[in-house]
Amino acid sequence: MSELVSEQFIDIAEESFIPKRLDRLRIGMFGLGVVGSGVWRVLREKRNEFAYRFGIDVTIERVCVRDGSKDREVDLPIDLITLNPADILEDESIDVVIELMGGRYEAQTVIEAALKARKHTITANKLLLAYELPRLRTLAERNGVNLHYSASVCGSVPVLRALDNHRSGDSIEAIRGIVNGSTNFILSSMTSSGLSYNEALLLAREKGFLEADPTLDVSGQDAAQKLSVLIYHAFGLHMTPDVIETDGIEGITSQRIATELSNGKVIKLIAEASLDAHGKLNAHVALQAIAREHLFASTRDEFNALEITARHAGPQILYGKGAGSFPTASAVIGDVVELLREQL
Amino acid sequence: MSELVSEQFIDIAEESFIPKRLDRLRIGMFGLGVVGSGVWRVLREKRNEFAYRFGIDVTIERVCVRDGSKDREVDLPIDLITLNPADILEDESIDVVIELMGGRYEAQTVIEAALKARKHTITANKLLLAYELPRLRTLAERNGVNLHYSASVCGSVPVLRALDNHRSGDSIEAIRGIVNGSTNFILSSMTSSGLSYNEALLLAREKGFLEADPTLDVSGQDAAQKLSVLIYHAFGLHMTPDVIETDGIEGITSQRIATELSNGKVIKLIAEASLDAHGKLNAHVALQAIAREHLFASTRDEFNALEITARHAGPQILYGKGAGSFPTASAVIGDVVELLREQL
Repeated sequence: MSELVSEQFIDIAEESFIPKRLDRLRIGMFGLGVVGSGVWRVLREKRNEFAYRFGIDVTIERVCVRDGSKDREVDLPIDLITLNPADILEDESIDVVIELMGGRYEAQTVIEAALKARKHTITANKLLLAYELPRLRTLAERNGVNLHYSASVCGSVPVLRALDNHRSGDSIEAIRGIVNGSTNFILSSMTSSGLSYNEALLLAREKGFLEADPTLDVSGQDAAQKLSVLIYHAFGLHMTPDVIETDGIEGITSQRIATELSNGKVIKLIAEASLDAHGKLNAHVALQAIAREHLFASTRDEFNALEITARHAGPQILYGKGAGSFPTASAVIGDVVELLREQL
Repeated sequence: MSELVSEQFIDIAEESFIPKRLDRLRIGMFGLGVVGSGVWRVLREKRNEFAYRFGIDVTIERVCVRDGSKDREVDLPIDLITLNPADILEDESIDVVIELMGGRYEAQTVIEAALKARKHTITANKLLLAYELPRLRTLAERNGVNLHYSASVCGSVPVLRALDNHRSGDSIEAIRGIVNGSTNFILSSMTSSGLSYNEALLLAREKGFLEADPTLDVSGQDAAQKLSVLIYHAFGLHMTPDVIETDGIEGITSQRIATELSNGKVIKLIAEASLDAHGKLNAHVALQAIAREHLFASTRDEFNALEITARHAGPQILYGKGAGSFPTASAVIGDVVELLREQL
């Protein structure tokens, strides 16, 4: 009798996409840059702990890269690497896809295919999410799998979870933050060392805080993409970056910084969104002079900070490293843990 | 056939304590002080939203108070109030107990009875948790119900969830924070307005930031209790407050504050715990001089801030209101939302 029940139950489960319980979690990863290498290292280090705590063996089975000949500073068995996305997307034994390749359309193809193949998906791709979040979430839901993307905004700082919680249990009136580490590093260097904009830009490049093409950062576009994802979680609205009024830091001079400093203020690139009394959302990215006593003024270099103003909780700030190999990897691993919890 | 299966399935569910799925969540609350009144108001305000989002009707059915004759500033039907704990604990229709009565032994009796009666339990009682957390968690687990206590530390700031996430996906090396609003208010007033300790104590009392008996706050005991709960979540160790080296703020003079201020430093009461190289945990509560650039120096009045240093994520800070009716109520409602999510 009990066998009959359990067979019947398996049929029901498959019909209605009840997630399978796993004792293994097999990951296919796209991209093996600084963040991907960090994820590989940390996951290997955490394998025993995950097995002990969740009873699930977590392994990276395949890594898909664009350029197989590239030298990589990561100790990864060569036969794990593939150039063919289908080796991951069409492999039914793979349960989870981690997308760390960046860019928009190629990543979208990968993520949509992964969700349709009923693989849980983790991504750090703020550009894609800023434009396609509702569509991708619906796709995940319809296929009975989970989509996580903590690493897409503010690196290791758990801002999206905080917004989700405050939105459910309270109501959010405004969000405001420093969400781009590169521009914050440039502004910090100009403020603390009196560097010119170009000198600070060079220093940021030397220190590895700048993309090869820094346009997305210095134009404020990167901040606008992150603000779009934050708005989705804070207010339940989808506002694409192209409709967010966006200023960058290109126009900044050391003179303006010095003048504000003599008034006890520090210039920061602030991404901001708030609901007005009529429920209309105002959002923009712009340079602002911040009073030296405010926590944002002490948010230096690659650090990010987000202020959430909720009706009952009042103002809150979350602060931490917004970029870098290990902080971002830490956020991706956090999403893996979330998946493990969802299996229990 | 399908009916047979579902009956069989219900039997299995009851045998093995699989949580029941709810379309109503009936709450019994203990205590109707400032936090309890806030919880009552916010839950009523959220009722439609919860029904819409989770399909669950959330209501407070009974409130147990010690003194039925007390005048209360809350618009609550009189017949909901009872003096008899059994009216909640022995009422099988009540699914959730929220304990906001404070104190240790009476609250322990209530919470243990609630868990044994298989009621999900929410508490803000840091004193009880600091001593009985492992026991209460085990009791909840054994009875197949959930125990939540976000409001016990740092009010509305979601520090315990952040610690859980960092502990699972990363590893925590140190925690350090301002976790007591009353003493922080006193120190802030002495620093910014040059008040003496006694003047600042009076001001804190006028503003409602002080308990009738301020000893627990000013002796650092309240901070040590919160540190105990934080340590449990950060390091998976249970360290009761009596073995945490604890200093208070009673010894502080306006002169010492002025001297540090002239050195660019601000005096704060810091609760701190870290693992040394041998895995030994060091924990204490003490006055520390904080550099003015540090975020703690800008943490004023009733605000709390916690710095979490994780191996990969680096240092993070969470900041917000640590006390008060609505911030604490917001944390309790956050726990109700967590329960609602766990029903889905």
